[in-house]
Amino acid sequence: MSIPLNLTSEHQCYGGTVGLYRHRSQVCNGEMRFSIYQPPQAKLQSVPVLYFLSGLTCTEENFMAKAGAQQFAAEYGLMLVVPDTSPRQTGIAGEDDDWDFGAGAGFYVDATAHPWRSHYNMYSYVTDELPALIAANFPIQSERQGICGHSMGGHGALVCALRNPDRYRSVSAFAPIVAPMQCPWGNKALAGYLGENRENWRAYDASELVLERQFHGSILIDVGTSDRFLNEQLKPEIFEQACAKVGQPLILRRQKGYDHSYYFISTFMEDHIRHHAQALL
Amino acid sequence: MSIPLNLTSEHQCYGGTVGLYRHRSQVCNGEMRFSIYQPPQAKLQSVPVLYFLSGLTCTEENFMAKAGAQQFAAEYGLMLVVPDTSPRQTGIAGEDDDWDFGAGAGFYVDATAHPWRSHYNMYSYVTDELPALIAANFPIQSERQGICGHSMGGHGALVCALRNPDRYRSVSAFAPIVAPMQCPWGNKALAGYLGENRENWRAYDASELVLERQFHGSILIDVGTSDRFLNEQLKPEIFEQACAKVGQPLILRRQKGYDHSYYFISTFMEDHIRHHAQALL
Repeated sequence: MSIPLNLTSEHQCYGGTVGLYRHRSQVCNGEMRFSIYQPPQAKLQSVPVLYFLSGLTCTEENFMAKAGAQQFAAEYGLMLVVPDTSPRQTGIAGEDDDWDFGAGAGFYVDATAHPWRSHYNMYSYVTDELPALIAANFPIQSERQGICGHSMGGHGALVCALRNPDRYRSVSAFAPIVAPMQCPWGNKALAGYLGENRENWRAYDASELVLERQFHGSILIDVGTSDRFLNEQLKPEIFEQACAKVGQPLILRRQKGYDHSYYFISTFMEDHIRHHAQALL
Repeated sequence: MSIPLNLTSEHQCYGGTVGLYRHRSQVCNGEMRFSIYQPPQAKLQSVPVLYFLSGLTCTEENFMAKAGAQQFAAEYGLMLVVPDTSPRQTGIAGEDDDWDFGAGAGFYVDATAHPWRSHYNMYSYVTDELPALIAANFPIQSERQGICGHSMGGHGALVCALRNPDRYRSVSAFAPIVAPMQCPWGNKALAGYLGENRENWRAYDASELVLERQFHGSILIDVGTSDRFLNEQLKPEIFEQACAKVGQPLILRRQKGYDHSYYFISTFMEDHIRHHAQALL
């Protein structure tokens, strides 16, 4: 592989290793970071890989530190790969001004609007560049990929899977933004990264995409009934109705009393890992 | 209970709830904070309680967010209580200057040296005031207490248990400072909080205490062989030798390749919870 990876730190965990890496990204035109959990099985053989896309303000480490996924990835023998949520320190003016746009809020799109288009190409990074980099550097079965995410990252996971069903065998999400064209977070991000023409936004809206092409397996979504973003930002009923309209199998679970935090994610992590393992193993 | 508790936030987790609380502490002469996990069983009956003492720089939330203990506490039906690692914002000059002394580094002692003695009384807080507060406000079986900790908190757990075997049914530690009189962290903290007379330090040194009085059950300790603090600060062999000398049952496991982080703690959390559950249930 021509792109060198820089290992920032490494920690043994559940018999495998959590590694934090930096590298030069071509599509993001600068440094990008990711974390990777290599389960103990990867010492002996190639294993399937599950990507996790994090939510607003997260880095590549929040999921590894808080979600408790390594326990189950070690049990089933899955590699976990978690990219940062955006490029950082690109030099774009205002990049750090908002917590829900710019750094920490890449929204998993390829930006077309100036000045973001020079760096903010997280869609291509997640679907193309990062998987190639992982395949070249770690013992994975690159034809066995799944994708999962939380909130903004749940939106990203659904969009990546619906646009590339040939590349992902499984998809799930925690508290995803399922209809970014119909919520404030999505409107702000899509207008900022893609411009004001809403027709261009449809390629990044899961509830629009599923109407055109369905995913080949069931989609698992968990959302908490006490999530303070549920009604204004997440709106799972929009995706639920779209799936019902076209016959897309969806397991949407409304978990009573749970909120938007990693305390919620960790509680149902085992179910999500099992969902992916059933498709990947 | 005369002392009001202020709930800062609450998160459902594994069928129970993580709560973050603030309250006025008498022994620390100011506000103290703790987190508590109430397992689902606590909705119906009183349950045993496991205290966890955190390491340097931690707050009351690190353990709840990163250790993955709630899963197993929910399985066995144990309450988890995690105090902050020191008083904060007491007004003592220099309190925030060092990461290994003062705020975030209370070392679980009752300070006798000026100016710390006016606030830094974590030993009495952990062994007396906090358990009374918990018993008065939550459904626990107060005669069924265990204690665990990490690093500085492992030191704290061992000291609390060895000095109060009648109050704790079980004790364990991750990467504990077992001989603070013989390591830099310990020397700095004990000199600062207790003054230069080393005779006064012995009451807070587990390797000294165990020579005088043994604990009634096996002590479980895990330490990673790749822990960068192992040889200079932790020195488990000193406690190992002291236990051997007096016949104190000790299960000391040197975990190959593991470091000092929560990635290490989470890996062996299930074993520790089980160790406590066997004594508490």
